[in-house]
Amino acid sequence: MIDEQEKSADELVRVGVLGARGRVGIEVCRAVDAAADMELVAMVDQGDGLFAASDAGAEVVVDFTTPDVVMDHLHWCIEQGINAVVGTTGFTEQRLERVRGWLARKPDVGVVIAPNFGIGAVLMMQFAARAARHFESVEIIEQHHPRKLDAPSGTATHTARLVAAARAEAGLGPVPDATKDEVAGARGADIDGVRVHAVRATGLVAHQEVIFGTVGETLTIRHDSYDRVSFMPGVLLAIRAVRSRPGLTVGLDALLD
Amino acid sequence: MIDEQEKSADELVRVGVLGARGRVGIEVCRAVDAAADMELVAMVDQGDGLFAASDAGAEVVVDFTTPDVVMDHLHWCIEQGINAVVGTTGFTEQRLERVRGWLARKPDVGVVIAPNFGIGAVLMMQFAARAARHFESVEIIEQHHPRKLDAPSGTATHTARLVAAARAEAGLGPVPDATKDEVAGARGADIDGVRVHAVRATGLVAHQEVIFGTVGETLTIRHDSYDRVSFMPGVLLAIRAVRSRPGLTVGLDALLD
Amino acid sequence: MIDEQEKSADELVRVGVLGARGRVGIEVCRAVDAAADMELVAMVDQGDGLFAASDAGAEVVVDFTTPDVVMDHLHWCIEQGINAVVGTTGFTEQRLERVRGWLARKPDVGVVIAPNFGIGAVLMMQFAARAARHFESVEIIEQHHPRKLDAPSGTATHTARLVAAARAEAGLGPVPDATKDEVAGARGADIDGVRVHAVRATGLVAHQEVIFGTVGETLTIRHDSYDRVSFMPGVLLAIRAVRSRPGLTVGLDALLD
Amino acid sequence: MIDEQEKSADELVRVGVLGARGRVGIEVCRAVDAAADMELVAMVDQGDGLFAASDAGAEVVVDFTTPDVVMDHLHWCIEQGINAVVGTTGFTEQRLERVRGWLARKPDVGVVIAPNFGIGAVLMMQFAARAARHFESVEIIEQHHPRKLDAPSGTATHTARLVAAARAEAGLGPVPDATKDEVAGARGADIDGVRVHAVRATGLVAHQEVIFGTVGETLTIRHDSYDRVSFMPGVLLAIRAVRSRPGLTVGLDALLD
Repeated sequence: MIDEQEKSADELVRVGVLGARGRVGIEVCRAVDAAADMELVAMVDQGDGLFAASDAGAEVVVDFTTPDVVMDHLHWCIEQGINAVVGTTGFTEQRLERVRGWLARKPDVGVVIAPNFGIGAVLMMQFAARAARHFESVEIIEQHHPRKLDAPSGTATHTARLVAAARAEAGLGPVPDATKDEVAGARGADIDGVRVHAVRATGLVAHQEVIFGTVGETLTIRHDSYDRVSFMPGVLLAIRAVRSRPGLTVGLDALLD
Repeated sequence: MIDEQEKSADELVRVGVLGARGRVGIEVCRAVDAAADMELVAMVDQGDGLFAASDAGAEVVVDFTTPDVVMDHLHWCIEQGINAVVGTTGFTEQRLERVRGWLARKPDVGVVIAPNFGIGAVLMMQFAARAARHFESVEIIEQHHPRKLDAPSGTATHTARLVAAARAEAGLGPVPDATKDEVAGARGADIDGVRVHAVRATGLVAHQEVIFGTVGETLTIRHDSYDRVSFMPGVLLAIRAVRSRPGLTVGLDALLD
Repeated sequence: MIDEQEKSADELVRVGVLGARGRVGIEVCRAVDAAADMELVAMVDQGDGLFAASDAGAEVVVDFTTPDVVMDHLHWCIEQGINAVVGTTGFTEQRLERVRGWLARKPDVGVVIAPNFGIGAVLMMQFAARAARHFESVEIIEQHHPRKLDAPSGTATHTARLVAAARAEAGLGPVPDATKDEVAGARGADIDGVRVHAVRATGLVAHQEVIFGTVGETLTIRHDSYDRVSFMPGVLLAIRAVRSRPGLTVGLDALLD
Repeated sequence: MIDEQEKSADELVRVGVLGARGRVGIEVCRAVDAAADMELVAMVDQGDGLFAASDAGAEVVVDFTTPDVVMDHLHWCIEQGINAVVGTTGFTEQRLERVRGWLARKPDVGVVIAPNFGIGAVLMMQFAARAARHFESVEIIEQHHPRKLDAPSGTATHTARLVAAARAEAGLGPVPDATKDEVAGARGADIDGVRVHAVRATGLVAHQEVIFGTVGETLTIRHDSYDRVSFMPGVLLAIRAVRSRPGLTVGLDALLD
């Protein structure tokens, strides 16, 4: 989506990938390789030394590895002065605080840690939080393949909490609902006062709809994800942004504004 | 939707309306009056005699009244040799059997009794029943205004039962669902093994979606009703059909084929 | 949606309505009357004097009248120090400049002029403009009743222009489209490079969908409007906001943040 | 979806696949192999002899090859008394007539030739044709990835023709449309009087919506296809059915009733 003209080598962002042979890492390597403004300079996986990345002159390291090694990776990147984009899970507030401590001593380094790199999903949540205080009613429907173990999905639960918080802040009371006679479960799960419905069907991939309603109108924000590669535009966006954002950025939201 | 040319008076269907000042009756009068192939010859309500309809030469009587008077109306119509289209509720199998008895003595008279004159809703249910045996998965989402007392809606429950029956007949087992970790209600109400979700929001009117899924694809049948007048095309269809359908017809289905 | 407790009389916003017997004006009167934090103090229409509003102590005047009288009304309101919320059409940049001139001499008075008071429609456009620069593809589908004279709708055209401007600003090139063999019209109207499709069908009211796509995912923002009353929450929002926004505010956008 | 119990070997349908190493053929082999009531007895491709299929005792042969060889294959199958399921394209009425001629001499053999094995797509078209005569308005929206060369899609064009034919048969006139002021293309392509809109966006796969409208309500039939494997349930259905359907069956429709 950026200008596809060839750039001269010194304009290209030099990117190293940790976890390069993992399920997501492979896709990251492909996406970086295909991006006209980036150069994939190092593919590092278990058994390789991290110095392969610094030796290759990586300016940004992308980490989709595991919670047990990611903190070592991050500490090393920050010490080396390399910016990092992290999709590995397991970041507690305590872990984030430690990363902030390391960054305090390296004020030029940027780190972006995000639980979700799907631009569509992140915008859906952002828009939902913004719309929440203007509508009397709101419900969430998420739809997934039937092999999924949890219901509702983590994204739906997170969206419901954001929406509930925005409603509370705006002084909105409970959503109107005159239901007297309910077959158990018909009205969905109650997440902080927001009803969430989980549909499971063969053929579906990952979909979510947030429906807002007020007198005479509804506003619906729908996200359909068909493929793991849908994370890649978000990863590329973070790679482009991290060099000019020193310190810790949590979540893709800040990069989308 | 039929030929809008003026017809000569003796080609017009002569229609009488019982319950003509009721909420639905008023709309029936309007619709009959506007139909190019019908003539509204009698508007009868509480306090008026039924003979107003026969005196006016009504060939078809439309009845949207109440369960306590509708059987008297029907008996009278059949005795008079007047065809009837009935949207009044409360028809048990016992009542239908009595109507069949009356009609047995008047073999030329036709009666259509339907719980739902919405062509869209009836086709949705018909299509859902036909699709059911070809898909591994199926779920239903209905969406209504928040003043509705029951969840799920009667139409959704009825659709679920039709779908479940079609699946059983085709020898399909339970729909696949690996859910292990559910917030209560997230997976909806279980109606004969079909999950049904009821959304309630200000701004919505009456909507239903039946989602079928199999490997790599989904088929969705959606009905949106915005207005009570959506029953009228079905009522007109029944008026046109009843004269050539002696005996009892229950439901709009038969008239749609 | 605000706190429904009774407020003491001196906390209520005192509202006068101009064009009170017009199609929209009647709805405004109803909505103000029903709002717990407002008092409807004057209903003015053709033949009535504007002073009815000032005599009744109106703090905010709502104007849904006609282009030929609205400038006189606004001038009078500003002179009287009464805030104004205006839904009347026909505001050219020249007219807005004149209103700004009047307001310069009355720095405490606020005026909100909006072409569209539908909160859902305004948020849809806002979200579309924000999402535009993050997606490779975008198209718009609007759906209306078949009595509509223009295609696409004004809202769809306006949305397309906002989206196109946001894409240009982000340096995005044309949307990808390999179409070689097109039946004329299949790919919709081209509005500043954004394809817009207009559906017309009996039963529809006013609906719009903006579809954004990038690798592996789509984000859809959909607005469904069922009724003219859908403007009322936006009018009430403006009434509540105008007293604390001196000067001219054009569009509902600023009030929604 | 059928009973998953192991069947004894002589109950299994013995299936041979022609074009077994082709893009679709590979998926057919996988699907047959995974079906509990079938046995994959021969995988034949270019360079292999067709007799591999008869030698292995194939009762049904599946052919996804090319127009230049498929007629030879079919002639051979019929001569051998082997039933055939054919997804290869290029069947003109002339070719079908020749197949009928061959079958006339082998009254026990069944052949199913279908241009589309997607059950969802076929049901969508069937339902659209059935609904067409009950609604005043109808439009079609198809949505595909932006690498598609034709607009609208073949399926959309075919659906429009089926719908137009059903409307004509029911005596319906043109759909209502008051459009006076149209930006070229906004109202879509005109296919036999039915408006068809083609959306192209990255992230989309293959989707189609048929929207029917009458007074106060709409009925929408939507098909979403995410994957080539969505053809497999239809292929398996045809394999199961062909042995009990001697003669030529064109299209999946007949097998779905």
